[in-house]
Amino acid sequence: MSLPIFLKASLLWGFFVLFAIQLFMEINKLIQAYRERKFASFFDENPKSYDPSAKERGLNDYNQHLNGTFELDYNVSSSIVSDEKSPYTLKNLNITYPVKSVNSYISDGDEASKSFPSSVEKRFEILSNALDNVSSRFFELAYATMHTTGQSFMMSFQASGPHAADRALESMVVAYMELTEFPEKVDWVKDFGKFQLKLEKDYIPVPKGTGLIIGCSTFPTWNSVTGLFANLMCGVPCIVKPHPLSILPMAIFVQELRRELTRNGFNANMVQLAVDSLENPITTELAEDERIKLIDYTGGNEFGNYIEELEGKTTFTEKAGVNSCIVDSFEDMKAVCSNIAFSASLYSGQMCTAPQNIFISQNGVQENGQKKSSEEFIQELSNAFKQLAEHPKAGPATLGAIQNERTIARVEDSQTKGEVALTSSKVTGAEFASSRTVSPVLRVFKSNEIEEYGKECFGPIINIVLTNDQTESLNIAVNLALENGALTCLCYTTDKDYQQKVKDSLNKVFVPVSFNFTGAAFVNQHAAFSDLHVTGGNPAGNATFTNREYVAKRIVWVGNRYM
Amino acid sequence: MSLPIFLKASLLWGFFVLFAIQLFMEINKLIQAYRERKFASFFDENPKSYDPSAKERGLNDYNQHLNGTFELDYNVSSSIVSDEKSPYTLKNLNITYPVKSVNSYISDGDEASKSFPSSVEKRFEILSNALDNVSSRFFELAYATMHTTGQSFMMSFQASGPHAADRALESMVVAYMELTEFPEKVDWVKDFGKFQLKLEKDYIPVPKGTGLIIGCSTFPTWNSVTGLFANLMCGVPCIVKPHPLSILPMAIFVQELRRELTRNGFNANMVQLAVDSLENPITTELAEDERIKLIDYTGGNEFGNYIEELEGKTTFTEKAGVNSCIVDSFEDMKAVCSNIAFSASLYSGQMCTAPQNIFISQNGVQENGQKKSSEEFIQELSNAFKQLAEHPKAGPATLGAIQNERTIARVEDSQTKGEVALTSSKVTGAEFASSRTVSPVLRVFKSNEIEEYGKECFGPIINIVLTNDQTESLNIAVNLALENGALTCLCYTTDKDYQQKVKDSLNKVFVPVSFNFTGAAFVNQHAAFSDLHVTGGNPAGNATFTNREYVAKRIVWVGNRYM
Repeated sequence: MSLPIFLKASLLWGFFVLFAIQLFMEINKLIQAYRERKFASFFDENPKSYDPSAKERGLNDYNQHLNGTFELDYNVSSSIVSDEKSPYTLKNLNITYPVKSVNSYISDGDEASKSFPSSVEKRFEILSNALDNVSSRFFELAYATMHTTGQSFMMSFQASGPHAADRALESMVVAYMELTEFPEKVDWVKDFGKFQLKLEKDYIPVPKGTGLIIGCSTFPTWNSVTGLFANLMCGVPCIVKPHPLSILPMAIFVQELRRELTRNGFNANMVQLAVDSLENPITTELAEDERIKLIDYTGGNEFGNYIEELEGKTTFTEKAGVNSCIVDSFEDMKAVCSNIAFSASLYSGQMCTAPQNIFISQNGVQENGQKKSSEEFIQELSNAFKQLAEHPKAGPATLGAIQNERTIARVEDSQTKGEVALTSSKVTGAEFASSRTVSPVLRVFKSNEIEEYGKECFGPIINIVLTNDQTESLNIAVNLALENGALTCLCYTTDKDYQQKVKDSLNKVFVPVSFNFTGAAFVNQHAAFSDLHVTGGNPAGNATFTNREYVAKRIVWVGNRYM
Repeated sequence: MSLPIFLKASLLWGFFVLFAIQLFMEINKLIQAYRERKFASFFDENPKSYDPSAKERGLNDYNQHLNGTFELDYNVSSSIVSDEKSPYTLKNLNITYPVKSVNSYISDGDEASKSFPSSVEKRFEILSNALDNVSSRFFELAYATMHTTGQSFMMSFQASGPHAADRALESMVVAYMELTEFPEKVDWVKDFGKFQLKLEKDYIPVPKGTGLIIGCSTFPTWNSVTGLFANLMCGVPCIVKPHPLSILPMAIFVQELRRELTRNGFNANMVQLAVDSLENPITTELAEDERIKLIDYTGGNEFGNYIEELEGKTTFTEKAGVNSCIVDSFEDMKAVCSNIAFSASLYSGQMCTAPQNIFISQNGVQENGQKKSSEEFIQELSNAFKQLAEHPKAGPATLGAIQNERTIARVEDSQTKGEVALTSSKVTGAEFASSRTVSPVLRVFKSNEIEEYGKECFGPIINIVLTNDQTESLNIAVNLALENGALTCLCYTTDKDYQQKVKDSLNKVFVPVSFNFTGAAFVNQHAAFSDLHVTGGNPAGNATFTNREYVAKRIVWVGNRYM
């Protein structure tokens, strides 16, 4: 027995309405979270909250990729074997990825964009489903991240999985707000008294062109998904160009997006992964193609500056900076040093938000109003770094591994400069005997040795800078941010006037300040729906995760009028 | 008898609360208008709605400026006599304006910005009051505009007065939305199960630096107030650099803003008028100063491109374009030709939104499904132009006067090219015998003569372009917009498929299309709170009046965190 046709239709309609209401409520919840900036997370960051078998399944799924071919449904015969190599096992992942020509990526993407839905809600639904599907692969993603970036398992899980997914969701909702800023259609009536002039008007958010997402080797998904999901919400076809040393994590996102597009009957080429190798990079060819109008970039300053200066492109860059930590006064020196040591050791200082230079007055610091000499502080800080690095469990889990061999060379080289308070040595974790892991270097400089400490020292290289006083500490931090950029500033002070001065001066050069962080608060962490990541106002980058501007620049509003 | 002190305090508090509620309601009404895009105007555009004596008072006030010194409370001894000269009387206005050095403008503005209120509501209140005060000078402003730009009285009144004030209000409310996007402060609590991590966070919209507003000679206030009022809402100190031939209209706005700042106890140098002369221009010196971070520019393409390419500046430009009118089919040829003739004749084609090239197929057009030859259409259009220009009242009132003598030379020169269907001749109005007014030139070109019609022909120079067919008409319009930019496109078609094609193709190069305008609907007019002016997506300019991006780029969001 089958239901009468009108009942079938009613049920179908009912489901549709229910679904629309649910989507509307979900979006509104996200808008509220975005605007309130309180704690909000929509993907659980605790691996233990997931199904007990998920971790093992994720590891198996990751292992399946090794020496295999990654499926992207490209229908092409060309492929390359990636340069990906685990910083833990020092073995190549040996994964084969299908590849197209630069021209095919662009024209296939353009073709796909023609049939991409114009409904903002439909776009949201597709992207939201893809994120949900990625979430069922968070452990696989964690291992993929771990063995390409050198992040610890926990950081790999959180940063590439739930935190990245939250960031993607955040940029989707900002895009939703921007794309629904104006009505689709409106009846415009002007009353002239004797008659009324009536026009119909529409408002169309036209995507600027094809988007290129250039990823980095240290945070392959976290830094790339905001731009990718913002673009897709805006109807921009995307070419994802991961760093040749860290492809797999982003490949998983792209695969799920393509599957969801196909499932919904749309052309999957709206999102394409464009893999290249260290030997034959394709990034400049892509970036310089005149059909590429939008570029999202994370990486070094030299290439980032080249990207920003390309003519006729709208760019969103996150480059590097020199982050300062200003130490003036505090209640508990041990707690302060332990916090700084953790922040600077986390992922061996390979986070763009990690503090690099710690400024203290040569006259010392204040603990509960009591003077402590600079020597005492340096000793306490050295101990904190040493204890963390030497801790059998916490050490390797905090430091992770060094992504790139060149960083190891830089660490060694750094020990020939300044007064070395702590030398770097090999750290061996229980899990991976061959892990490329070293303990941080701690060097002490006088404030006039700015040639040494004033540039970015990527990796586990931390500098203590002895200044004349707190005023000089602040001035140098401000000037470094102006010259070389900064993503964060950490400051310890119990002096309210000085706090205000630090805040005002650094905010003026567009650097956010975190004050008096101890315990579980770390300057490195920028939480989705609350913290803005990179301000876009200094040389560390020209865009922010995630504000209105980040999305608004991807489209052009065009309004037509009809009589 | 005086009221007891507690009653006085209560009353004061009551007034304050009432005022706050009123302001809140006013802002919400404006936000609604901005988002709905229906007809909305907050300053009456009809001169007859104002006090009957206002017009005469305005004329007197305008006359008072002639041969006088404009009061700006600068406390300086330097001044210059402006180059302003009426296109109607051909007499110099002979107004003396106080001037400072470029360095003083910038440092005085910077100093003023330090004490400018951080409260967005307070800023809104000051700017809103200043607009109200300007509105009591709309007639004075009208005469100031008329005798510097050559606009007719009616256009001068509407464009410089109520329409400009509406645009200013619109940009104020977009700024309000952007500046209140995030809360000022928030308590952030992350639950770790065993403990809670609590942080206090703040979100600060930091202004990018000093703003420079570079005005044009044809629409001195309408094109400058959006940037000015958006900047001020964002806390950006502004240097207003009007075109040396049209200073007085913007001087009136600046004067009222300065008065309102002083009245509220703030430093008036938050807004400064920086007058220069044709002989000694100061614009490049100002624009290139590294303290100038934001530039709003209206004017020619060459200087506009220079402005856009300045390093380290955020720019908002409205340059020129080549606007197309595509004529395919319609119901009433007379109505169509009359509409085109009015739009192209209005202010003698000196509007950036005026149609310049009229594309028709050499095989003719369709009127109610009946073929009309291209010759018939050209004849009808010529008649419409001729009748309007020769009408004793409507002619001079529509054409106004030519702002710049060089445009007259260009009109004469234009008659040596193409097939001239209508020659230009002197038009004399009753009011001003010496008025610099001429009737439009109408020329006919073949589509391959693009070297002639493809560039901007500023002034009353209109081209009819005979194409192979409708497809070629559209293709040329699209390519011209891509190459040289376009602010508008006017299209007449009764063919729904062709309409869709025109809309899609032109929207893709970021040009808005107005379809089938007849009667009182004119392509030139972009109404505040409904029409977006310039899309920012093609070479005609890089910004839009007024969307979120227009404001968001003036500030940098910085978020601090406190333990």
